[in-house]
Amino acid sequence: MAIKQKRYFLPENELPTQWYNIQADMVNKPGTMLDPVTREPVTVESLSRLLSVESSRQELNMTDRWIDIPEPVQEMYKYYRSTPLVRAYGLEKTLGTPAHIYFKNESVSPVGSHKLNSAIPQAYYCKMEGVTNVTTETGAGQWGTALAYASKVFGLESAVYQVKVSYEQKPYRRSVMQVFGSQVTPSPSMSTRAGKDILTQFPNHQGSLGTAISEAVELALTTPNCKYTLGSVMSHVSLHQTIIGLEAEKQMEMAGEYPDIVIGCFGGGSNFSGISFPFMRHNILSGKKTRFIAAEPQSCPKLTRGKFCYDFGDETGYTPLMPMFSLGHNFKPANIHAGGLRYHGAGVIVSQLLKDGLMEAADVAQIDTFKAGIEFAKAEGIVPAPESCHAIAVAIAEANRCKETGEEKVILFNLTGHGLMDMAAYDKYLSGDLNNFTISDEDIEKNTTGLE
Amino acid sequence: MAIKQKRYFLPENELPTQWYNIQADMVNKPGTMLDPVTREPVTVESLSRLLSVESSRQELNMTDRWIDIPEPVQEMYKYYRSTPLVRAYGLEKTLGTPAHIYFKNESVSPVGSHKLNSAIPQAYYCKMEGVTNVTTETGAGQWGTALAYASKVFGLESAVYQVKVSYEQKPYRRSVMQVFGSQVTPSPSMSTRAGKDILTQFPNHQGSLGTAISEAVELALTTPNCKYTLGSVMSHVSLHQTIIGLEAEKQMEMAGEYPDIVIGCFGGGSNFSGISFPFMRHNILSGKKTRFIAAEPQSCPKLTRGKFCYDFGDETGYTPLMPMFSLGHNFKPANIHAGGLRYHGAGVIVSQLLKDGLMEAADVAQIDTFKAGIEFAKAEGIVPAPESCHAIAVAIAEANRCKETGEEKVILFNLTGHGLMDMAAYDKYLSGDLNNFTISDEDIEKNTTGLE
Repeated sequence: MAIKQKRYFLPENELPTQWYNIQADMVNKPGTMLDPVTREPVTVESLSRLLSVESSRQELNMTDRWIDIPEPVQEMYKYYRSTPLVRAYGLEKTLGTPAHIYFKNESVSPVGSHKLNSAIPQAYYCKMEGVTNVTTETGAGQWGTALAYASKVFGLESAVYQVKVSYEQKPYRRSVMQVFGSQVTPSPSMSTRAGKDILTQFPNHQGSLGTAISEAVELALTTPNCKYTLGSVMSHVSLHQTIIGLEAEKQMEMAGEYPDIVIGCFGGGSNFSGISFPFMRHNILSGKKTRFIAAEPQSCPKLTRGKFCYDFGDETGYTPLMPMFSLGHNFKPANIHAGGLRYHGAGVIVSQLLKDGLMEAADVAQIDTFKAGIEFAKAEGIVPAPESCHAIAVAIAEANRCKETGEEKVILFNLTGHGLMDMAAYDKYLSGDLNNFTISDEDIEKNTTGLE
Repeated sequence: MAIKQKRYFLPENELPTQWYNIQADMVNKPGTMLDPVTREPVTVESLSRLLSVESSRQELNMTDRWIDIPEPVQEMYKYYRSTPLVRAYGLEKTLGTPAHIYFKNESVSPVGSHKLNSAIPQAYYCKMEGVTNVTTETGAGQWGTALAYASKVFGLESAVYQVKVSYEQKPYRRSVMQVFGSQVTPSPSMSTRAGKDILTQFPNHQGSLGTAISEAVELALTTPNCKYTLGSVMSHVSLHQTIIGLEAEKQMEMAGEYPDIVIGCFGGGSNFSGISFPFMRHNILSGKKTRFIAAEPQSCPKLTRGKFCYDFGDETGYTPLMPMFSLGHNFKPANIHAGGLRYHGAGVIVSQLLKDGLMEAADVAQIDTFKAGIEFAKAEGIVPAPESCHAIAVAIAEANRCKETGEEKVILFNLTGHGLMDMAAYDKYLSGDLNNFTISDEDIEKNTTGLE
C-alpha cells in the first residue's frame, strides 16, 4: 500500500572535486561578449572591474574542460551535498506512466534552492581577492538568500536588490535575507542613478531582473572594494551549477539508468545548465541521444520566441553586450509568480547550444505550472517553487506521452527549490484567481527592434 | 577560512526497524489514565473509540521494549530518513566554545519537521483498520501539515483544526495543508459543540491546542469511520518519535562521541521524547549520566511551574484524565510565536520521568529564543522554527557554560523544523516589536485549583 521510496546519495569521498566547463567541448563556441562602453571584446581585465578575477577567468575559459573546485568550497558543499536523486515513484503512480521519473532535489540546501552552489564559490573568490562588500540582484529571492548566507560564511557584507514585484509577492524572502544579515532594497529604487532614471520614466515600474542587475552593478562600480555577483545567465555561474549534473550522473549510474530526457526550468540558465551540461557532454563526445528541454514561462519566452542578437544583460546597459536569445533588455515581463524566470535573455552558452540544435525549449502557461506543482506535491510531499513547477509540467507532459506510446523512457528533472515562500501564489491558484499571460509578436518585435 | 562541515547519515540498511518503548524500562510506570466519563482506567477498547486500535495498544503497552515498525512505514521513512546528524562547527566557532555541539536536523523531512515520523504510522494504522477519515488539531501547523501529507499517501481524508492565533500568524501553513488536500478550520470554530461553547463564553478566544483537540475529538466521535490522531502528548506518539534518538545514537557512534547533554524543545513532548528516550535507556539500564533538558516557553511553564495532577488533555474534557504536570486544561497561553509549545500539559511518561528526577526542564523567554535562533541561522544557514529556538537557546547557554569552565562537553539538540513559515515572527524580532510574556503564580494557582 505504501509507495516505494528510493533516494540515491553519494558518499562524501565521491563528491565531484571539479566543475565541468562545457565551453571546452563546444564545437561552435559561444559568441564573443563586447564591453558596453568600448564595444571591444571583453577581457578578464575589463570583466574583473565588475566581477572577481577568478569568476572573470572562468567566464572566458574556452579550453579547460575541468575546473578545480577550491577546497574551502568543497568543504561548504559537504554541508548539503550530495543532494538526493529521487525516483519519483509517487508521481509515476499518480500518472500511471511507464516512464521512470527521477528528480534531483536541490531544495534540500540550507537556503532552499540550488543557488547556493554558485553563491559559495563567488563569495569565496571575492574574499580571497580582498573584497569586503558584494552586491547582487534577486528575483524570487532564491539567489539573494543564497548570497546572503554565503557572504555571512566568508565574512563579507552583502547588499541585495530584489525585484519589487517579488519583494511584495513574497515578503518573507526579504526577512530570511535579513536574518542572514543582508541589506535588501526593492528595485527599482531611488538609491542608484539607474533606478532613478527608470522610476522617472515609469513611476509604476514593477521591477525586473534586468533592472535590479543595473542597480546592483552600479552600486558595485561606485563602491570601493565591492564586487558584483550574480545568480544566473553568465557562464561561470553555469559552470558552478554543473555540480548538480555531475552528481546526478553518478547517482543515475547507482540507479542503473541513463536519462533519455533531461529537463530544467529556465530563467537565465543556471539550473538548466547545471543539470544538463554534464549529460550533454556525452551527446557531444560519445554520440548519446539524450534530449534536453528548457522549460520557460509562456509570458517570458526568450528561447521559444526571442531573437538571437547582441543585447545587454540589464535594463540600463551596464553589462557586456552578449550574443544571445533575447526579448530585448527593456522587456517588462508580466507579474508571474515564478520571479526567478522573469528575465529577458538566455546566456551565451545556452543560446549557442539552442542555435546549434543541441537542446530544445518549451514554454508553459502559469496556470499549468501550478497544476503540475500541486500534482507533484500530493505525490511526493514537497511543495515546489513556482520556477520548478515549469520543469515539472514538462516532465509530466513527457511522462503522459510515454503513457500513450507505452515507452519506458527515463526522465530526469531538476527540482530547483521548495515553494514554501510562495504559498500566496498557491492560494491564488487554489482559489481560481491565477491568470495566464501571453505576449504578442508585436511586443517582441517592438522590444527587439534595432538589436542585431 | 571555510567552516569545517560534518554530517552523519545512516545507510538504508542501518535504519532502525523498531521503535523504543521506554515504558517497558521505567521503574515507576506512568500513572493510569482514566476514562473521562466513567473515571475507570482506560483500556484498549475504550481508547480505540477515539484512536486506531494499534495506537491504543501501543499507548498502554508497558512491557515490550521494542515495537516493530511496519514495513510500509519503514518504506515511507526511507523517503527522508535518516535525517542528518550535524556537527555544528559554525555555531561552535561563533560561540568560541570548547563544547562539541551536534544537532539532529529533522527540518529536512518533506513537510519540514519531525512530525511526519508519527503521522505516517498513525495514518497507516487507520488505513489498515478500514478507517476513511481522520481528524486532528494543530498549533503552528507542523503536525497538521504532516498529517495532511501522510493521509494523502494512504488515501485518507483529513480535517485539521488549527489554533486560531497560529492560523492568523502563519496563514501559509494552511495553504500547505490545502495543497495536500486537507480541510483546515481555525479553532475555536462554530462547527463543533465544544467550539460553540467556548466561543459563547469567550467570544475573543484566540484558540489553544487544548481547544483544538476538543474540536477534533468531537468531530471524530461524531463522524462514521473517522478516527482522531494527534501530534504529541500521548505515549504512542513519543514511541514513534524515538526513531530520532535511535538514529542519533548510531550517528553519534559514527562521530565517536556520546552526549553529555540532550536537549529538546517541549510542547507536549513528542520531539523531546524522540531524541531523549533512546539515550535515557542507557541512564536507566547502564548507569550513564547524560542530562536531559526539556526547553519550554517562559509563558507556558508546565514542567518548571505546573502542578502534578490528574487533568484533561483538552479544554472541554473529552480526552482521558492523565496524571501529568499541567497548568490546567483551561489555561489560555499567551500568543507566542512558538505555536507548537502553547499547550497546558506534559504527557504521562515525561511527567513521571521529571517527577523521578530522570530529566530536567528549563524555561526560556520568547525574545531570547529568537536571539538564539538568529545566531544559529547565521552560523548554520538554517532558519529554525520558533519551537526549535527554545532548544537552541538552552544549547547555547550550556555551550557558554563550557566556555567558562573549559569543559569539552558533548551537547546534542533536536532541530525539530525550519522556520520558513514563521518569518513574520522573525520580522517582529528584528524590528524590536517582540514581547516576552510571564505568568503569575496566582494565574497558575487559579487554573489548577481543584485538580488533584
